[in-house]
Formats: sequence, structure tokens, C-alpha cells
Amino acid sequence: MLGSTHGTLTTDPRPAQVVACGERSAPAVHSTATAPGTGDALDVSGRPLHADVPDLDRFFRPESVAVIGASDAEGRPNSGITRQLIAWAERVGARLHPVHPTRESVYGIPCSTSVAELPEQVDLAVLLVGDPLPVVQELAEAKVKFAVAFASGFAETGEEGAVAQTRLAAAVERSGIRLLGPNTNLNAFEKFRDDLEGPAIALITQSGHQGRPVFTLQELGIRLSHWAPTGNEADLETADFLSYFADQPEVGAIACYVEGLKDGRSFLLAADHAARRGVPVVAVKVGRTETGARTAASHTGKLTGADTVVDAAMRQFGVIRVDGLDELQDTAALLARARKPQADGVVVYSISGGTGAHFADLATEAGLHLPTLSAERQSELHQWIPDYLNVANPVDNGGHPVGDWRGRRIIDSILDDPEVGVLICPITGPFPPMSDRLAQDLVDAAERTDKLVCVVWGSPLGTEEAYRTTLLGSSRVATFRTFANCIGAVRAHLEHHRFTQGYVSPFDDAPRALSPSFRKAQSLMRPGRQLSEHAGKQLLRAYGIRVPREQLVTSAAAAVRAAGLVGYPVVMKASGAHLAHKTELGLVKVGLTSASQVRDAYRELTDIARYEGVELDGVLVCQMVERGVEMVVGVTPDPLFGPTVTVGLGGVLVEVLRDAAVRVPPFGEDQARAMLRELRGHSLLGGVRGAPPADVDALVEVILRVQRMALELGDDLAELDINPLMVLPRGQGAVALDALAVCH
Amino acid sequence: MLGSTHGTLTTDPRPAQVVACGERSAPAVHSTATAPGTGDALDVSGRPLHADVPDLDRFFRPESVAVIGASDAEGRPNSGITRQLIAWAERVGARLHPVHPTRESVYGIPCSTSVAELPEQVDLAVLLVGDPLPVVQELAEAKVKFAVAFASGFAETGEEGAVAQTRLAAAVERSGIRLLGPNTNLNAFEKFRDDLEGPAIALITQSGHQGRPVFTLQELGIRLSHWAPTGNEADLETADFLSYFADQPEVGAIACYVEGLKDGRSFLLAADHAARRGVPVVAVKVGRTETGARTAASHTGKLTGADTVVDAAMRQFGVIRVDGLDELQDTAALLARARKPQADGVVVYSISGGTGAHFADLATEAGLHLPTLSAERQSELHQWIPDYLNVANPVDNGGHPVGDWRGRRIIDSILDDPEVGVLICPITGPFPPMSDRLAQDLVDAAERTDKLVCVVWGSPLGTEEAYRTTLLGSSRVATFRTFANCIGAVRAHLEHHRFTQGYVSPFDDAPRALSPSFRKAQSLMRPGRQLSEHAGKQLLRAYGIRVPREQLVTSAAAAVRAAGLVGYPVVMKASGAHLAHKTELGLVKVGLTSASQVRDAYRELTDIARYEGVELDGVLVCQMVERGVEMVVGVTPDPLFGPTVTVGLGGVLVEVLRDAAVRVPPFGEDQARAMLRELRGHSLLGGVRGAPPADVDALVEVILRVQRMALELGDDLAELDINPLMVLPRGQGAVALDALAVCH
Repeated sequence: MLGSTHGTLTTDPRPAQVVACGERSAPAVHSTATAPGTGDALDVSGRPLHADVPDLDRFFRPESVAVIGASDAEGRPNSGITRQLIAWAERVGARLHPVHPTRESVYGIPCSTSVAELPEQVDLAVLLVGDPLPVVQELAEAKVKFAVAFASGFAETGEEGAVAQTRLAAAVERSGIRLLGPNTNLNAFEKFRDDLEGPAIALITQSGHQGRPVFTLQELGIRLSHWAPTGNEADLETADFLSYFADQPEVGAIACYVEGLKDGRSFLLAADHAARRGVPVVAVKVGRTETGARTAASHTGKLTGADTVVDAAMRQFGVIRVDGLDELQDTAALLARARKPQADGVVVYSISGGTGAHFADLATEAGLHLPTLSAERQSELHQWIPDYLNVANPVDNGGHPVGDWRGRRIIDSILDDPEVGVLICPITGPFPPMSDRLAQDLVDAAERTDKLVCVVWGSPLGTEEAYRTTLLGSSRVATFRTFANCIGAVRAHLEHHRFTQGYVSPFDDAPRALSPSFRKAQSLMRPGRQLSEHAGKQLLRAYGIRVPREQLVTSAAAAVRAAGLVGYPVVMKASGAHLAHKTELGLVKVGLTSASQVRDAYRELTDIARYEGVELDGVLVCQMVERGVEMVVGVTPDPLFGPTVTVGLGGVLVEVLRDAAVRVPPFGEDQARAMLRELRGHSLLGGVRGAPPADVDALVEVILRVQRMALELGDDLAELDINPLMVLPRGQGAVALDALAVCH
Repeated sequence: MLGSTHGTLTTDPRPAQVVACGERSAPAVHSTATAPGTGDALDVSGRPLHADVPDLDRFFRPESVAVIGASDAEGRPNSGITRQLIAWAERVGARLHPVHPTRESVYGIPCSTSVAELPEQVDLAVLLVGDPLPVVQELAEAKVKFAVAFASGFAETGEEGAVAQTRLAAAVERSGIRLLGPNTNLNAFEKFRDDLEGPAIALITQSGHQGRPVFTLQELGIRLSHWAPTGNEADLETADFLSYFADQPEVGAIACYVEGLKDGRSFLLAADHAARRGVPVVAVKVGRTETGARTAASHTGKLTGADTVVDAAMRQFGVIRVDGLDELQDTAALLARARKPQADGVVVYSISGGTGAHFADLATEAGLHLPTLSAERQSELHQWIPDYLNVANPVDNGGHPVGDWRGRRIIDSILDDPEVGVLICPITGPFPPMSDRLAQDLVDAAERTDKLVCVVWGSPLGTEEAYRTTLLGSSRVATFRTFANCIGAVRAHLEHHRFTQGYVSPFDDAPRALSPSFRKAQSLMRPGRQLSEHAGKQLLRAYGIRVPREQLVTSAAAAVRAAGLVGYPVVMKASGAHLAHKTELGLVKVGLTSASQVRDAYRELTDIARYEGVELDGVLVCQMVERGVEMVVGVTPDPLFGPTVTVGLGGVLVEVLRDAAVRVPPFGEDQARAMLRELRGHSLLGGVRGAPPADVDALVEVILRVQRMALELGDDLAELDINPLMVLPRGQGAVALDALAVCH
């Protein structure tokens, strides 16, 4: 185990010179991101450490609502919206006040001529006007808490609209009102079924059309509690609803359809907030491809972010990413309603050996654990199932036992097994004489257990009575239509509980104060420039990352003296601020064992540099490091999430296979180790072809120290690339053989 | 371009000694697989080159049927089956004759007491008896063409059953009857809807339950023509039905659910038969995992085969493999009915920008080509769609235009575009005022075009009128329920046509006669033994694969002489029949440049061998080959498909990443090149980090020569592993630096 989880420099093999650490001069990243209410809970990069959870109770359940621009004129779109809002207000028991400059009443309800004339202080104002900007100040003066702006023509239409949106956002921020929109719709005020019980799905979408199928789940008996159509997010954003929904007792899972994020950090803080509460978040995030990213951006006016980074960030904070809306529905529905798993063992139970084999094949491929049932359990099952059938798991009953009392016994016996957390029964081909009773037995059995019971209804029709009435009528059986969605949802369910069980927020462990390394590093930074290899390595040394012994020299005689100090054999490299591809240019000489070789090498390197027209600040004479596993560790800025940390296999592997893993800070040692496991070539670190195992602990420590650099130097560090980092055999550390650092 | 597609040795860089080639003594692989009727159309391995297509017309449409063991006794399973057969015979217009030793009639139909007493020669006998074996001879004497055996208790129950099945199979083969089963069911005699038009799906399944959803597609308007439940395949197997169905004019696509294959070659020949006819085959094949393979084997009593080999074999012959039954349904339905694509461009058309972005993202990720529509097309679309909406592709109409005449204009305009082959309209959230008309417009437009029109109906309900009646009522619109299945099916459709267009069967080009290399190679084989490195390399030389100049020596003095002949620098290696891990044991010395180094090396190698107790046949003195890209090429036998050819990246890459591709012979140069493209690290061959591009042509030639070895030596060659094959820079060839060959 390492002493630190965020590179707090406790196990420094070659300690950097200790420097006094004063107050930092300026926060480096997102200095304006300090959300109101988070006070001084900022990390060392100046970003907040806790979600700023808005109180949206009166937004979703207002006592009084004003409709600005209400209308009952035939054929006007505002009239339709007004009518729907009146119906909604009646349903939720809110008092509705139309506002219109010239009308006395709208649909029979007395009208105010302006916001100032409203008969009472309202919780929520719905703005049906073309330009919401002028109204904002009036609303603030009338102490309105929330507003919804339907108008479009903002960031989604291009630059001009983006300017208008920025102006609106600024006005809203000044006013203290919380605004949903612009460019949103009525989805928040839909008719939610109130006859459904159990934990609900809360829905957040950046497209009404894309949210509709999840909303429609109510017609399949799945409860929905909220729908936030976030529109252009001039103020309230996905993250706000995410954290608010995670606090609502009736919410069992949050389903999101996201095209672009307003701010990466606030999204992660909201996901962290949900993870702390154990509330699962399932999300479709558009932007797997350039096409998708471009199209989504033109739809929402938001950045989609580099997809590998989005993907990693979501996984770090337990957000379950899915690709299809069908997966979103099925996964969210299961996670909202399933109880905490008592075991991770999955048993597949079927009336057909073929179905069991097929399902077990796909489930195993997806990583589910199908334990072999104990001999005792198997003999119990064989009381009711003929001996020649396989009941080890999958359990094949051959069909007939489901037609009588034995069917229920079999199910109960499987569910009683302590190794079993999930029972899945794929009914591929419904055959009413068998499957009707089977469905009812599964529903009944599910009522008496906390374990998860899943059914896959394989008929492409879906009009069958056993499906529509028996299975969908149960709030305890999770019913799917495809093997794949069942398997994906069950895996997400088990992974969610593994993730949240003992979840320690990386934000709690994130560094808040500058390390002693910072001042030293700052003195090395050259704004706007790429550092020379030598300076880049000094930057690494400042953060306790080991580099070879080396000296920068400017004469052949000095090179020989340096080689004596560094110790033979040595490596010599041309050094300059803008040097790249040194090896290809012949600007690296390795394995020099004598003074005369060093002298010759000095002359050759400077000759080549002259010939190539490369400006040198000298020649590096470096200790030659023994062989290990070559890795690459670096920092890359992401427009959504700020600096990210990357690790990959070095040498030809990173070039050919792009075998790298990325994480968004802050993250702990567990994630640094997980990054390594993600690498396709990670077994190289374990030692192959007789090579000794590499010093993975040292590599992990380097990753964490690089993270610390990224957090402390923030935007000032435009790019960092340690390539290669030579990871020596276990116990011997890791050495950065080359470093490319670019200052902002 | 190479001169040969199967390694016919026309461009041999170092020709093997020409040897006379007489008649081969014995075919090496599957010598018993010569199917009746294929005559002398055998390849050099003794296996057939064409599918042996059975005439099953009278099986599926018999004029007369005997039911052996017919019953009408209350409660007996045979009575139910008899009743269903009577109903089926009435539907298809067949005369049915019950056979029972003691009854006079069954359900009012006069009964024969034995097969011999049947009133006419029947086409098909359905055997409801517990043991079909004794009946087989009687049936043959009565000149019955086909039999179906329902009885279970054969190979699916274990060893004893397998013996009984072998006995049954032998009796059937002797009799000349073609038998379906044992352990099959009534699926072939189901009630097929005859009111549906257009090309149909033919279905082959190894589990009735698993086939049911495809059969049920008829209730969604998809025509089904046949269902073959192959059971234990004692005689008729999946391949027989596959090739027969491919010949039926009404069959548009063949859907298969396969747990295990009886014989790999016959499956590939059947797939080849279908590919020649352009009939798509879509298959679920269980056995992705060990669990799946084991369970499937216990269900069907058949081998599932190594999954990577099954996967490669299916791709080689154009079989579209899918994982879920839902994918099987959706893909087969589309492929059965869609016409030949006129272009590969896919346009996504939606009433929501979010839906378009999401769908386009997933479609692009899956490799579909979404062309940007021309400026002219876009301005045409903007006549009907507001200017601020994106119509480049995806086309977002914003909703309103679908409500009037503009909707149809937009669809027609997109379909008129010559770049467009497929129009996909995802209707995620149905909203009847818009989506009802949209659905009808799509159905109408699809009637007037040969292009493919797809709709994704995203509502989880599926009870909506527009879906049930309008969309499912159309035989021209392909309707899906999920983005993923639509994308997968469209991709399969486009790939199928790319594959079959200009399909050249590799069986047509497969070698039929032994090459001159064979006799030479045969003299080197040592049955039951592993060849020494030197002998292994001679085997490669016999097939024209280049090896380093080398000599096997047994004294230091001979080593020095050999080095002089081979040319300095040299490599020296201990050589023995059972040597492995030579490098790890220190039994390889490289870069020896003088006689004294060679003498020392000889002593050191023989000392180590003595110390390690390794028996040597001498020391190899080899030419040192310059650096290139290290590859691995080998032959591995597969229990289903016979010898397979593997190629991978050598050195650490193959060990760490298992980056290899496999093919089942026969295959041509195109597949050898495709193997290389499949490698994750294939860009190494193009030259990275300043390395020159490798001689890919020479590598391809080696792969084809190795295939030729595999075909000619067959089972006699238990294993071959060229590791490494050094692929030199372009134009310089490829050299096998080490070879491991094991004889059977």
C-alpha cells in the first residue's frame, strides 16, 4: 500500500528540495467556478468539492404559478400551452395566475396586466414571451423563485443566439431567480400517474422526443416522479436536477439523456452526490463519434467533450452509461426497483435447455457470475425435475414441472440458495399452458423474497396476457424483452451496489492546500513556452518523480566531467526548448562508456544540430537506466473536465495500439490501479518472457504525483508528457527518461 | 498481386527441390467425409468441394404421410401429436395413414397394422415410437423417402445414448432413407400463414423454444416458409436444410439457431451454396464462452467448436452471426425483404434534432456511411424545413412539416438522392398528430421506391395504431423497436450485398492435386514426433518458405567451417527434437562475428545442454537475418473444421495481447490480407517510428503456402508454428527464423 492517495509525496524516492509554501497567487483552473453556497470547500485547483444542491421543491410542486404571455386566442401556440398549464395546476393543486398586458381573463381566469400586478407572490413563472430577458428583473422584484423560459432562438441557433443567451444568463444570475431554459418545453408539467407504487425513476433530458419512451414506461407500470427537460441550461443544468433528484425519497434511479454538458465538474459533483446517497444514475451520452458530437452540438449548443474522457469520468463516479434508449429504460427501471443484492450469483432457469444454454453463454460473456449449484441443491431440484436434465445452472426443467405445483417449489428452492442473488427466467417462446402458470409463479415467488427475479419475455408480440397483465402487473418482477437488455441491466445493478458499497468520495480526499512542490515548480514555468527536456525533468523532480542523474553541459570538456559525476555508461542527448523526435534526428547517443566516446558524441550531436538548424541550450549527459517496462504518463487538458491524467504503454505499443487509460482528477490510488488494469497490454507489467514483475507501486505513485501536478499547476500546464517512464523491476522504482512540458 | 491464391508456389523466392508427384497414398483429413453424389469433386485434403443438396420437396410437401405409433387414446402424448399431424395433413393436402399394430382406426382414419400394410407408398413417415431403429428397415423396404423420429434418449443424454444414436445413424445410412431427428418435434409441421406475401424467412433451429420468436414474426406480417427443427441430426443436419432452403425461390433469408455443428465442412459448403445464390444466412451460434459451450453440448450432444474459429469460418462464408434472438428476428426479416441496395449512403430523418444526433452517433460508430447531402439537396429540403434546422444528414424537420403535404415531399426528396440507399426514420416518442401521418407517408413512399426505408418505433408499448396497423401492415417498410437492432440489420444488409456481389467461392479455387512439395515434405515427417528446428525448417523449405542459410553441426570445428559458408555474423542455436524455450535457457547466441566466438559459443551451448540434461542432435549455425517485423504463422487443428491457419504479431505482442487472426481453409489471397487487417497491431506492418513498410506480399504468400501445407499434410501435421517469421522491408521477402512442427 502507498502512503497517499493523491500523491501527497510521502514515499518520495528522491525528495524534491523542500521549499516554503505560501498562499498560492491565483487558482489555476476554473477560477470562476466557485458556486454560491459552497463557501471555502475548494480543492487546490480552486474548484468546489461538493455539489451545490438547489432546492427545487417549489419548482416541481409550486403553490402558485404565473403564466407570462398566457393566451386563449384560437390557434395560437401559447393558448395550447396555457391550457395544459391550467390542467396541470389543477392536478397539482397550484393557484394559476395568467399575466397579459391587455386581457382581463384567460380561459375564465382573471388576468394580471404585469408581473408587478400579480395578486400574490408566486413560486414559479412560466414565460411564454418571445424574449424572456426584459421580464427577468420584474420577476426578481416580485420575489419569484423559479422561471421557465420556452423561447427558442438562443445558443442552439449559432453565435448570435449564444450572445443573447449569455446576456440572459447574466441577468438571471444577478436576479437570484433560478431559470429552466430557454428552449425547453412542457415536459416538467406532464401528467404523471399517481397510482403507481414503489421507488420511481426521475428523468432528465436534453430532448423531449428522446425522453418520451422513458416517460411512457408508466404505461408499463413503472413509476416516474419527475421530468426535467433542461433545454439550453442558461441557468439550471443537468447537474442541478441530478443532485436534487438524488435527495428525493421517492426516487429510486435517475435516467438521463445528455447531448452535451454545461460544465464537467458540476456534473461529476452531482454524480458524486448521487453515489454518496446510493442513488443509481443511468445515462445515454451522445458523442461516441465526431458525427454525433457535431450534430448534438448543433442541436443543444453545448460541447460534448472528448468521448474517452466523458466515458472515464462517468465510470469514475459510478454513472452507468448506456447507448440505446431501450437500455436506458430497462436499466433505470430495474435499478429503481430492485433491492440491494444479497449475493452476486445469477441462476438462469428455463423450460428449455437451449434457452438456458444460450442465455448462460451471453451472461457469462458479459461477466455475470453463474455459480454451479451445490450437489444438495441439485438433488433437491431433481425431486421435481427429471434426472437427465441439467440443474447445475442453468436449471433446465424440461417444461412439464411448470404446469403444476412443482413449478413454484423449483423457483423457491433456487431463491433459497444463499449463493443466489438473482434468478432470471427467459421465456423465449410463450406457450400459455406452461408459461402462464410459470409467469404467475414467478410473480408470487418474487413477492416473498428480497432477491431479484427477472423475466425475459421473448415473444416479439408483447400483447400476450401473461406479459401485459401478470408480469407487467408485478412491481417485484423485472420484465425485459431481450436477453441483452436483461443481462446489461442485471450487470449494472450488481456493479452499482459494488460501487456504492463503501463508496469513498474522491472529493473528500482531494488536496485543498498547495504542496511544498508547488513553489519550486512555479519557478520553473515559462508561460507560453515549451520547457527543455532538462527543465521538464526538473519540474518532475519538484513533484518527487525520479529522473536520471544528469547534467546540462555546453562543451565537450564539461561533458566528460559530467559523465564522471553521473557515472558511466551514459546517454547523451541534444537539449533545446523545441526539440522533438530526437531519436529520429540522431540527437541521442546511448551506452557511452569512455571519455573519448563522450567527446566524440558531444561533437556529433552539436554538428547534427547545426546541420539541422536546431537551436540547443546544451547537451544532456544522463545516467543510463537499466531496462524495465516503458510507460507513458501525461496530462492533457479537456475542455469540459479540465486537466486529465493519461497512462499508456510506451514505445511502439502506444503508437500502434493507442493503448492508454485516462482519468479526471480527483481520483485515488484505486483508480490509478484500475487505469493499469484497463490497458490491454497490462500483463507486460507482471513480467513476460522471463522478465521480472515491474514496480507497479512506483508507477501508481508517479500517476498520483502527476495528478497532483495537474491539480496544482492547472491551466498553467498546457501539456505534460513523460515518455518513456521506465518502470524498473519491483522494489526499484520508476524513472522518467524524457519529459515534454508545455506552459500555458 | 501474387500469382496464386492458394499457395500454388509460383513465386517461390527459394524454390524447393522439384520432386516427382505421384498419386497420393492416402487422403489426410476427413477421409470418410466423401458425401454421396459429390463424385470426384474433392480437394487435396480429400474433402468435398460442393454442398450435397438434398431434395427435400417431398419432406416439406409430402403427398402421403404415415404416422407410425399413431394414437387417439385420451391423455397420451402421441394422441396430441397425431391430432396435430392430421390437421396439418389436411392443410397441406396430404393423405395421412395411421399405423398401429392393434387399432382399426385412429380419429376415424383407417389404421394399417404395419408399415408393410400401408395402402400406398408414402413420402414421409412420422415415427412416434420409443425406438425408431427397428422401423428403419421396414420403411426402406416400403420405399419411404423421409422419416422423422421424435424419440429422445439419444446423444443428448450421454454416452449410452450416443451409442444408440450411432447405431440408428448407421441403419439410416444403409437404408437410403433421409431422417430428421431423433429428439425433434412438430415444428416442421406447424401452421404457416399463407396470406403473407413477398420473400420469406426459412428457419433452422436446434431448439423449438428458441425458434418460436422467429416463427411468431408471422403475427407481425413477416412471412415464414419453413421450419426445420434439426434435433440430434443423426442424419439430416443444419447444413442440409441450409443448402436446400437456399434453392427455394420463396426464401429471402435463412435464420438459424445453432448450438453445435455436426460437421464444419458441410456447414461451410452449405453457407457457400447460399452465398453463390445470394441468399443471406443469419445465425445465432451458442458457444461464445466455456459455460455456453458446455451447456449447449449437454443439450444437443454436439461440439460447439472453438468460438474464434467458428466466428472466422462464418465470416469467411458470409454467414451473419448475431447474439440475440431479437437480432436474429430483426436481421433476418430485413434481409429477407429488402431489395438490393442501390447505394450505401444512409440518411437519418427525424422530427427531433436530438433523435437524429443520437441515431447518427450510433450508426456512425457501427460503421454505417452517412453522407452529407449535397448543397442542392439541402436547399430543396429547406423549401419545406425551416432554415435554422440541420438538413445535412441527419435531416431534422423540427416536427411541423410532417403534419401536412410537406412531409411526403421531404421523404421523396431524400429517396431521390442518388447517394442514398437507405432512409431511416427513428420515431422515438410517438405523438399521433405528427407520427401517424409520418408513418403513413413513409409507408406510401416505400411503395414507390426500391430503396430501403426503415422506421424505429421507440415506444416501449408497441400497441399504437400507427405501429400495429400502418407500419407492420407494410411489407416495404422495415420496422424495428431499437436503434441498435436497426443499425445492426442495415449494416448486415449492406455487408451481405457487398459480400455476395462478385462472390468467388474459395472452394472453386481450392487445390485438387498434390503439389510437387508434398513428396519432399512427406519424407521429412516423423509420425508421432516433434521435428527438430532444422527438420521443421526443411519442411517449410519444401513448401517454398524461405529460411535462413544454416547448417547443423556436431563439432566446434564444423561450426567454424559452417559459419564461413553461411557468412558472418551468425546465430548459433542448440538443436534437438524436444527443445522449447531455447532463449530462456541460454541456448541461442546471436551476432557472432569471428571463428573464436563461434568456437566459444559451440562449447557454451553444448555445456548448457549437458547441464540442463537436454539431448541435442547438434548445433545450428544460421545466417543472421536483418531486422523486420516479427510475425507468427501457424497451423492448429480444430475438431469441427480441421486444420486452421493462424497469423499474429510476434514477440511480446502475441504473448501479451494474443493479437492473432484465424482462417479455415480453403481461403484466397483476399482473406489472407483480411487476416492482417484484423490484427490490432497491423499498422506495425506499414512501418512505425521511421521503420520501412514490411513486405506484406511476402507475408501473404507465406500464409497461403502454410495453408497449402495444412491442406496437403492434413491430419499428419498435428501442429505447425513459425515463430518468428521475420518480415523484411518491402521487396525483401520474409524469413522463418524458427519452426516448430509436430507430426501426428
